[in-house]
Amino acid sequence: MKSNLMECVPNISNGSDPELIEYCLDAIRQNPSLKLIDYSSDSDHNRTVITFVGESEALIEGAFELSKRAIQKIDLNFQKGTHPRMGAIDVIPFVPLGNTSIQECIKTSEILAEKVATHLKLPVYLYALSARAENRKKLPSIRKGEFEGFAEKIKLPEWTPDFGPCERHSTAGVVAIGAREFLVAFNIYLHTPHESIAEQIAKNLRESSGGHRFLQAKGMFIAEKGLAQVSMNILDYNKLPIYRVIEMVRMEAKRFGVAIAESELIGLAPMQALLDTAAYYMQLPSLKPEQIVETKIWE
Amino acid sequence: MKSNLMECVPNISNGSDPELIEYCLDAIRQNPSLKLIDYSSDSDHNRTVITFVGESEALIEGAFELSKRAIQKIDLNFQKGTHPRMGAIDVIPFVPLGNTSIQECIKTSEILAEKVATHLKLPVYLYALSARAENRKKLPSIRKGEFEGFAEKIKLPEWTPDFGPCERHSTAGVVAIGAREFLVAFNIYLHTPHESIAEQIAKNLRESSGGHRFLQAKGMFIAEKGLAQVSMNILDYNKLPIYRVIEMVRMEAKRFGVAIAESELIGLAPMQALLDTAAYYMQLPSLKPEQIVETKIWE
Repeated sequence: MKSNLMECVPNISNGSDPELIEYCLDAIRQNPSLKLIDYSSDSDHNRTVITFVGESEALIEGAFELSKRAIQKIDLNFQKGTHPRMGAIDVIPFVPLGNTSIQECIKTSEILAEKVATHLKLPVYLYALSARAENRKKLPSIRKGEFEGFAEKIKLPEWTPDFGPCERHSTAGVVAIGAREFLVAFNIYLHTPHESIAEQIAKNLRESSGGHRFLQAKGMFIAEKGLAQVSMNILDYNKLPIYRVIEMVRMEAKRFGVAIAESELIGLAPMQALLDTAAYYMQLPSLKPEQIVETKIWE
Repeated sequence: MKSNLMECVPNISNGSDPELIEYCLDAIRQNPSLKLIDYSSDSDHNRTVITFVGESEALIEGAFELSKRAIQKIDLNFQKGTHPRMGAIDVIPFVPLGNTSIQECIKTSEILAEKVATHLKLPVYLYALSARAENRKKLPSIRKGEFEGFAEKIKLPEWTPDFGPCERHSTAGVVAIGAREFLVAFNIYLHTPHESIAEQIAKNLRESSGGHRFLQAKGMFIAEKGLAQVSMNILDYNKLPIYRVIEMVRMEAKRFGVAIAESELIGLAPMQALLDTAAYYMQLPSLKPEQIVETKIWE
């Protein structure tokens, strides 16, 4: 097994210009030590989520090169989208895989933060498990006011960046970099165009409004499909299995007479979570790992 | 990857004597080149299905030692059970895994057949893809008349064994050995004790009575659980996915107002078949292999 294996999931503030997105993705593709796993663009949100894996050193290189390209191409003065954003490269989380400790991810985020600040002149906030102040733990708290608001916000003493200039980058804003635990990003599309239905379901289910623990959820309309979507993060897939999330969404959607159209996984999902889901549906009381023949040997 | 990797799935004609079964299983457990994957005993059937994997040479050793122990301990003159049987060791199939060809499995079955015949004085029929005559391709055709009937059947010219004496072993009968393609053995328990319901569902669904291709099914009552069971073999899990089998059983069971209680997998199931099942339930249009983080690296 590789040492220091991590997942990096940067978000860039463009989801509508294929040429620009490809140029940014190439920063990862061209690095032979990195593996681009997935990316997902949304033109309404005007945002692209990129997932790649590798070891600490290569991840820093790749994330740095990606940041450089995003800053070069994205000018937030002219960027519009429904998703709140504060930076051309908006957020760069590092997530432990395998035996990697969260401490190694924190260290990696700090090294990248310094490099981005020094070489790209970008103000950096350490967030999530890398945060050095309470108000920087949660992304929405940092992002509040967005690119426009940071012209003034960055001058407040409690918002002095952890690294880099104490002034908003004129076109690329600021960036949050940090370590967080693994999560499953899972979206369910509903057979309705009404965002309000998805939002009501999300509100009923998410932990922050009194719903299920380990669940973040919001409702949105995805123009590309003409469908409302419940967009979710499952923060602990052992305590909150994927099937329970599906069945809870199905149950709440019944109130509106709405069925599930399809679902999507963004980025990585653990094999075990998928096998647990299969076992639930199959009503298998036990599924022993040694009963499973690896796909690989079937090729 | 190992060369010549195969699965061997012998059936012995005892499912009620734990000590005897353990003694037979030890034939596999004590061989460091073999991996015992699963075994499943049923005392009504009075039969145990054993699944182990390894390379050709080790499999022959293990299957031979297992046969020796079954013959030593099981006397069919005193054996009773609901499952038809013709031998103490009733059938020994070899199944290709990975890159292994069916030819390698046929060769393996032939080597074992000769060894068992020579050293254990047991009449052997090569069956399935190893069969050398049309009437030996299907197990029920060979097994017809069972242990008792073989006293005479073995003397018929068309039933001269492929290897070994032309006389039934006085306590251990005869054995079928052969190569077959991989199948998923999958059973569904119903919330009813009525075997006739399971049998009706099985009849509606199995290929041989006009149902779905690649499906073998029979209905039975499993006393241990007090439930009827639809016992199935899925002969091609790509063309007939597990979820379709489940949904077909559910649909037919509705006619009787009966729900599925639980299911069980006997022996091996391919990872891909389980992931396809999860994707169906989750309504995921696409599940890219690179999105899945191997369970292994999560330990």
